[in-house]
Amino acid sequence: MAAIYDKVAFLGLGLIASSMARAMREAGLAGWMGGHARTEKTRKTALELGLVDAVFSTAAEAVKDADLVVFCVPVGAMEQLAREVAPHLKAGATISDVGSVKGAVIRAIGPHLPKDVHFVPAHPLAGTEHSGPEAGFASLFQNRWCLMTPLPDTDEAAIRRLGMLWEKMGAKVDRMEAGHHDLVLAVTSHAPHLIAYTMVGVADDLKRVTESEVINYSAAGFRDFTRIAASDPTMWRDVFLNNREATLEILGRFTEELFDLQRAIRRGDGQQLFDYFTRTRAIRRGIIEAGQDTGAPDFGRVDID
Amino acid sequence: MAAIYDKVAFLGLGLIASSMARAMREAGLAGWMGGHARTEKTRKTALELGLVDAVFSTAAEAVKDADLVVFCVPVGAMEQLAREVAPHLKAGATISDVGSVKGAVIRAIGPHLPKDVHFVPAHPLAGTEHSGPEAGFASLFQNRWCLMTPLPDTDEAAIRRLGMLWEKMGAKVDRMEAGHHDLVLAVTSHAPHLIAYTMVGVADDLKRVTESEVINYSAAGFRDFTRIAASDPTMWRDVFLNNREATLEILGRFTEELFDLQRAIRRGDGQQLFDYFTRTRAIRRGIIEAGQDTGAPDFGRVDID
Repeated sequence: MAAIYDKVAFLGLGLIASSMARAMREAGLAGWMGGHARTEKTRKTALELGLVDAVFSTAAEAVKDADLVVFCVPVGAMEQLAREVAPHLKAGATISDVGSVKGAVIRAIGPHLPKDVHFVPAHPLAGTEHSGPEAGFASLFQNRWCLMTPLPDTDEAAIRRLGMLWEKMGAKVDRMEAGHHDLVLAVTSHAPHLIAYTMVGVADDLKRVTESEVINYSAAGFRDFTRIAASDPTMWRDVFLNNREATLEILGRFTEELFDLQRAIRRGDGQQLFDYFTRTRAIRRGIIEAGQDTGAPDFGRVDID
Repeated sequence: MAAIYDKVAFLGLGLIASSMARAMREAGLAGWMGGHARTEKTRKTALELGLVDAVFSTAAEAVKDADLVVFCVPVGAMEQLAREVAPHLKAGATISDVGSVKGAVIRAIGPHLPKDVHFVPAHPLAGTEHSGPEAGFASLFQNRWCLMTPLPDTDEAAIRRLGMLWEKMGAKVDRMEAGHHDLVLAVTSHAPHLIAYTMVGVADDLKRVTESEVINYSAAGFRDFTRIAASDPTMWRDVFLNNREATLEILGRFTEELFDLQRAIRRGDGQQLFDYFTRTRAIRRGIIEAGQDTGAPDFGRVDID
């Protein structure tokens, strides 16, 4: 396959950059790949794993001559990095990112970029609860969505080229407005994560229920929450700080609804509970039909061997 | 292997009874198995699948001469069934159940039983989001816990015999007091389920975020909630109605904690969020070390093929 970009620079070399580098290497999508990471340890690991052809201790060096620059750092680190690299970007280059919020990323990176580059924010809906360069794998994006949120005046060819890169890495590509993206993700990801973190924190607090019991008997539902709540703390801190309004709005609605169900439990209103639980089952069916999960029974059981 | 019980009767022929019957058949743990289900359709399916040797349209017939009777119906249906079968139980028989709450089960079944049977409530922490006799499989209990909550004056030999049955089906067995069980399960299962149901309900309500977007982009965390929220509505209605106090207490603590984190987001207190998310990661490690899940990255990705 012909390379889609001649030179690609990753800013940040964690789970997502590592997976992109592997996928792009496997499919021959880049002529050359370079990367910058803040710590020497990560740079060394990335080189040892053969993720990129070269690593750089400064972001400015990494982006030199790059046709595609991808910000793969937590959202809170993007603005400073954008300031640093802006003077060194190649004219005509495409600048993208993989951040989980898009409005804040556009505000953080956009204003610093020179006029002669193409800024195409993107968000691959893929990840695991692990982090770091070792955690990446080439098939991470297979059958997953990558949402692009370009601004209205962005060069259409640059958007299509980036979309093709994601498709060649196995992703399905969609476009939407950044604010809409942030609301959708508040529902499908940000609020669920905060809720999972909270429930796990509550269990940790309960001294009456000893830690080993909560852990031993976790298979009954709690276990899935702990997997979600094991995700990278820095990344998630930045998600909540940067998608504040939408997340708080969804959490507000969640709390209202939770109170209503708690009241049903207190009053012993079995019909309300039954109707609610029946309705939520239908959404599950929709997800399986949309190919976003399998119908294979999974909850409550796992092959430990 | 020698049968542990000569004649076994299942009251209810859904996911759990079906899995028990398959596991017991595979390992030769019962000489004969019979079952009762409320609907003719379920009885017919159970026979066609070869789950049991005979089905009965009344529970009274099913328990005749049985050495082990297992209540495998939603908790709310147990009391009426206990009344029905009590006069027909064999002297010296063991009576057990698989309900997710134990205090309420003991109150529902206990008072109706004759003095000459052994009542050993039990709860296998195993299940899937599917229900019905077709959903069962023999390995469901492998490496899962079965918690027994016998009353203090119960015959020790009867408790051990039932424990051995569960061990031969692959489960690990533990004993605890019924009230303690209900609190532990409120943390590890009941509160997480209500929370998952609520979050899925909120997503369903949001007309601004169209259904197809929530479904398409569910892989980002929400998907795991929908699996939990696809569990059997009748069973879960009964769980909440019958473990009311413990569930409401845990939900109360959850809400307090959630409000605290919401405030941190509103104030932009990144340190509080980071510290909280770091703490919850440690619990995940404990669960993997306890063999209740694998460390394999799973979240956010699934093989659809």
